[in-house]
Amino acid sequence: MTFGARYATALAERGRLCAGIDPHASLLLDWGLNDDLAGLERFALTAVEGLAPYVPVVKPQSAFYERFGSRGVAVLERVIAESKAAGALVLLDIKRGDIGSTSQAYADAYLDPASPLGSDAVTVSPYLGFGSLMPFVETATKFDAGLFVLALTSNKEGPEVQHATVEDGRSVGQVMLDHLRRLNEAETPLGSFGAVVGATIETTGARSGGELARPSAPSEGVSERSEHGADGAGVAYDFGFNGPILAPGFGEQGGTPADLARIFGAANANVVASTSRGLLRKGPDVAALRDEALRLRDELG
Amino acid sequence: MTFGARYATALAERGRLCAGIDPHASLLLDWGLNDDLAGLERFALTAVEGLAPYVPVVKPQSAFYERFGSRGVAVLERVIAESKAAGALVLLDIKRGDIGSTSQAYADAYLDPASPLGSDAVTVSPYLGFGSLMPFVETATKFDAGLFVLALTSNKEGPEVQHATVEDGRSVGQVMLDHLRRLNEAETPLGSFGAVVGATIETTGARSGGELARPSAPSEGVSERSEHGADGAGVAYDFGFNGPILAPGFGEQGGTPADLARIFGAANANVVASTSRGLLRKGPDVAALRDEALRLRDELG
Repeated sequence: MTFGARYATALAERGRLCAGIDPHASLLLDWGLNDDLAGLERFALTAVEGLAPYVPVVKPQSAFYERFGSRGVAVLERVIAESKAAGALVLLDIKRGDIGSTSQAYADAYLDPASPLGSDAVTVSPYLGFGSLMPFVETATKFDAGLFVLALTSNKEGPEVQHATVEDGRSVGQVMLDHLRRLNEAETPLGSFGAVVGATIETTGARSGGELARPSAPSEGVSERSEHGADGAGVAYDFGFNGPILAPGFGEQGGTPADLARIFGAANANVVASTSRGLLRKGPDVAALRDEALRLRDELG
Repeated sequence: MTFGARYATALAERGRLCAGIDPHASLLLDWGLNDDLAGLERFALTAVEGLAPYVPVVKPQSAFYERFGSRGVAVLERVIAESKAAGALVLLDIKRGDIGSTSQAYADAYLDPASPLGSDAVTVSPYLGFGSLMPFVETATKFDAGLFVLALTSNKEGPEVQHATVEDGRSVGQVMLDHLRRLNEAETPLGSFGAVVGATIETTGARSGGELARPSAPSEGVSERSEHGADGAGVAYDFGFNGPILAPGFGEQGGTPADLARIFGAANANVVASTSRGLLRKGPDVAALRDEALRLRDELG
């Protein structure tokens, strides 16, 4: 069963919340733990226990494990295994990207289920061009895994690259979405190749150069297009690429269910909204973590 | 002593070869090793023994260690420690890039000398905008470490993003070089914030859209500019940003010392040329590794 199919099933059964399993140093302290390897392990496995049985997708952020070196990565291996055992899809947030045999090595590390770090899907970064990610695409296809390619992020620095334009006038972000459309076009119910698109991208509607966004224009009929204000002309993004969408920035970072509906239109059905700190702050009580996850799930509809 | 100063000293003392410590599966087999954790460890530590005492910079590619999970990362920790002990600067090739507290976590993992993976410098990827890398910049400054930001790579897929243009007409790649210039401008003898620029970028002179490059135009006087053919107009890159330059693609991938001189002009003095497979294939004999490194050093001048 392809990742796209598994993802669609998971959303139908468990809703649309993606739970970040992110052991920030500040959260360890909030939970009364030390900022050390034992604290990391306790935090991460508690978060898995409280969240992975209830959400469709968990998203561990690798950076917070790598911070503790190889022993932190060993904790990440347990997080992946225990999350899978609890029935969640594991989207490992690694934002890797390289070329040729190096991309292949990353794909082998993170998408082969026989690897200690093998996950259901990973995030990847296309600064070296979408085509540099083909070893990930091929390996994902081989193992029924998925990818989420960075396309349009919500951070204020993102437009410098993501709104730059290629010769035919498209933005780099849209170019990535168009590549995904081609990869997913023959797939039902959904392709396995997704995008990362911030839940608050309207705040970055400015083109590289720093203008503030205009409020988004009303959608025009077919609503998989989102119009962003930018230098008076509006930059249109087309999210109808028949693939999963990870929308970080939900909850504490300001994104609301109404934002998701407006930004993604019909493609909103393929979105998981990701939240981390606001949710994890409910710990270390596992019932409190679960209850907050279920509340956010219901809020997302 | 800043990374920039240490880098300049290392190049003056040891030449300009950067040795990749890349345990490709195919190389393990070439060396008569199994493609397993024991083979990885044997390969990597032998390469360090043969190369780290002689080259200014070693560049382990993290992907090939991550492929073996946390136990592979533990081998990488040894590679870093033993390379430093042998007097080489360790440029860990991780191509990480994220935002905010996640970028900070990566910076803590890889630039803090107290971390098990703490290195002299790392490669970073700016798809989320150069500004998203500021936690790396600040942490590098704090610990006298360095960065190499992906700017212009030699792979054929790279121009799609790197040649896209921002509002003032600059390419994304040049935007990255200009950010580096600002970070490095007050530094002597050299700033600590470098770029990754392929030794064969002329082959990607085409703009996004796929045209082949024209041969590079003759340089015009001041030679820190490199003119690349693209749609008849030529795309000029300015490498005079007063920082280190990592040029992958030397040797087996086709880059020559003449290419480096032509592409980088006066900035060529700040370039380390990186090679991996062609060099590593000389192993497992440590004397043969050393001799090939010294031969390539002399070839680079």
